[in-house]
Amino acid sequence: MRNFMEMLHAKWDEGKFVCVGLDSDPTKIPESVGKGTVSQEQIVEFNSRIIDATRDLVCAYKPNIAFYATYGIPGWHALRNTIDWVNQVAPEIPVILDAKRADIGNTNRGYVAEVFDVLGADAVTVNPYFGAEALQPFLERKDKGIIVLCRTSNKGAGEFQDLTVLGQGPLYRVVAQHVASEWNKNGNCALVIGATYPAELAEVRGIVGDGFPILIPGIGKQGGDLEKTVNAGRDSKSQGMIINSSSGIIFASDGEDFAEAARRETEKLHNGITQILKGAVTT
Amino acid sequence: MRNFMEMLHAKWDEGKFVCVGLDSDPTKIPESVGKGTVSQEQIVEFNSRIIDATRDLVCAYKPNIAFYATYGIPGWHALRNTIDWVNQVAPEIPVILDAKRADIGNTNRGYVAEVFDVLGADAVTVNPYFGAEALQPFLERKDKGIIVLCRTSNKGAGEFQDLTVLGQGPLYRVVAQHVASEWNKNGNCALVIGATYPAELAEVRGIVGDGFPILIPGIGKQGGDLEKTVNAGRDSKSQGMIINSSSGIIFASDGEDFAEAARRETEKLHNGITQILKGAVTT
Repeated sequence: MRNFMEMLHAKWDEGKFVCVGLDSDPTKIPESVGKGTVSQEQIVEFNSRIIDATRDLVCAYKPNIAFYATYGIPGWHALRNTIDWVNQVAPEIPVILDAKRADIGNTNRGYVAEVFDVLGADAVTVNPYFGAEALQPFLERKDKGIIVLCRTSNKGAGEFQDLTVLGQGPLYRVVAQHVASEWNKNGNCALVIGATYPAELAEVRGIVGDGFPILIPGIGKQGGDLEKTVNAGRDSKSQGMIINSSSGIIFASDGEDFAEAARRETEKLHNGITQILKGAVTT
Repeated sequence: MRNFMEMLHAKWDEGKFVCVGLDSDPTKIPESVGKGTVSQEQIVEFNSRIIDATRDLVCAYKPNIAFYATYGIPGWHALRNTIDWVNQVAPEIPVILDAKRADIGNTNRGYVAEVFDVLGADAVTVNPYFGAEALQPFLERKDKGIIVLCRTSNKGAGEFQDLTVLGQGPLYRVVAQHVASEWNKNGNCALVIGATYPAELAEVRGIVGDGFPILIPGIGKQGGDLEKTVNAGRDSKSQGMIINSSSGIIFASDGEDFAEAARRETEKLHNGITQILKGAVTT
């Protein structure tokens, strides 16, 4: 039986922290695969060549469902076949479906079936706004990872997330505290903190402690600094991080060498993290 | 060109405030349509018979995408064909896709395409947690309705939504203020407030003023009281409300008379609202 946390910890033990974001916007897929007129098979070809070129270096893959949903049925098939491909060629690597789902409890059962049973993901991102009571259908799936938005990577994230809650500090901190201390009864929770906010990342690591996974998007194109990110996000065992890069890896080249370029960028990120963790680079 | 706000105001001018929630869980569809082994055609048959039986009484239809997504591809087709059916037989009635979407800006473009361009909805529900900057791809669609979660109907909604923001009151109030005063530059915003929280509903009506649409789920099965809801949610022109009922209408009967039963419940709700607005019932 696949178990997200066990799979993730096994990858951490191998020193792997890179997550490749398969945000395979069909308008950006290299011409050699079929730019402009991409079919579902071409999206899967693009993804599977990236997966084949990077799977010895990563701790997870993370397709964002929005980039597939925009293409309707062909996109849906492409997403499902991409997840199947990971399960086939790299069954030890977990797939995080980045879907930011949340609704009231009864309705969440539909999303749980979509994400885990129909699409076959090992983990999902969820939005905390409804509270834990509504998210029970997700939280009760012990073998799956439930990754809760905390401090998102976008520029305007602070509009609500930074609001000061009376006697408790900023809202994102309250979310982190609730998730770590109350939501995590099955040991299946994680948090999302953008690499663009290293101070908040360090603060949240202090709240959640060792071994608690933090998914960190925003490295690269969005401007997150790797050294600050790793030093803020690592736990005392130099683990706990899922460091995501999407377009910086998958669209590193728009030529025929896109898979090699993706590997090069993944390796660069992996080596960078390794060096920082070894203390070869210090802040 | 279809415009959500104009369509909604036209229905309000006809005195119509009921929204039928097409949460057509295939496991609950009457046996006469095909319980247990429902196909996409049977889901559409069920929905279209409900639509045909209720369309002279409602201001909107609101399918929740989770109940379709749980069935993968057949569900996707059923959803799209249901929206097409409304557009065909009742082109004057707007369709709200209840999808609670939200991501960072670039990614939201995928969802915007999914909801408006691929599925053809007139409005969508969104989650405020990322802030307005991220939701721009939604907010800039002037002809579409962007309905922001504010105080949701679930029991545990208060976990974060009721937190007191320093100097500003509860979080849901801050969300209402931001949406009404800053997000609504294109006049296309609305809010979601659960019928289960009439005091909060009255408070938010005071913040957003006349004409601002509030989508109100939670009547019926979830326990919301109609009289309290209408008196709290109405604006000074006795308009401004989209009062949703889902299973109370669509699953009113599990027999062959399900469409007639749905009409009876819709009429009951419509008449109840009308009586309350006329002041025949007072609190």
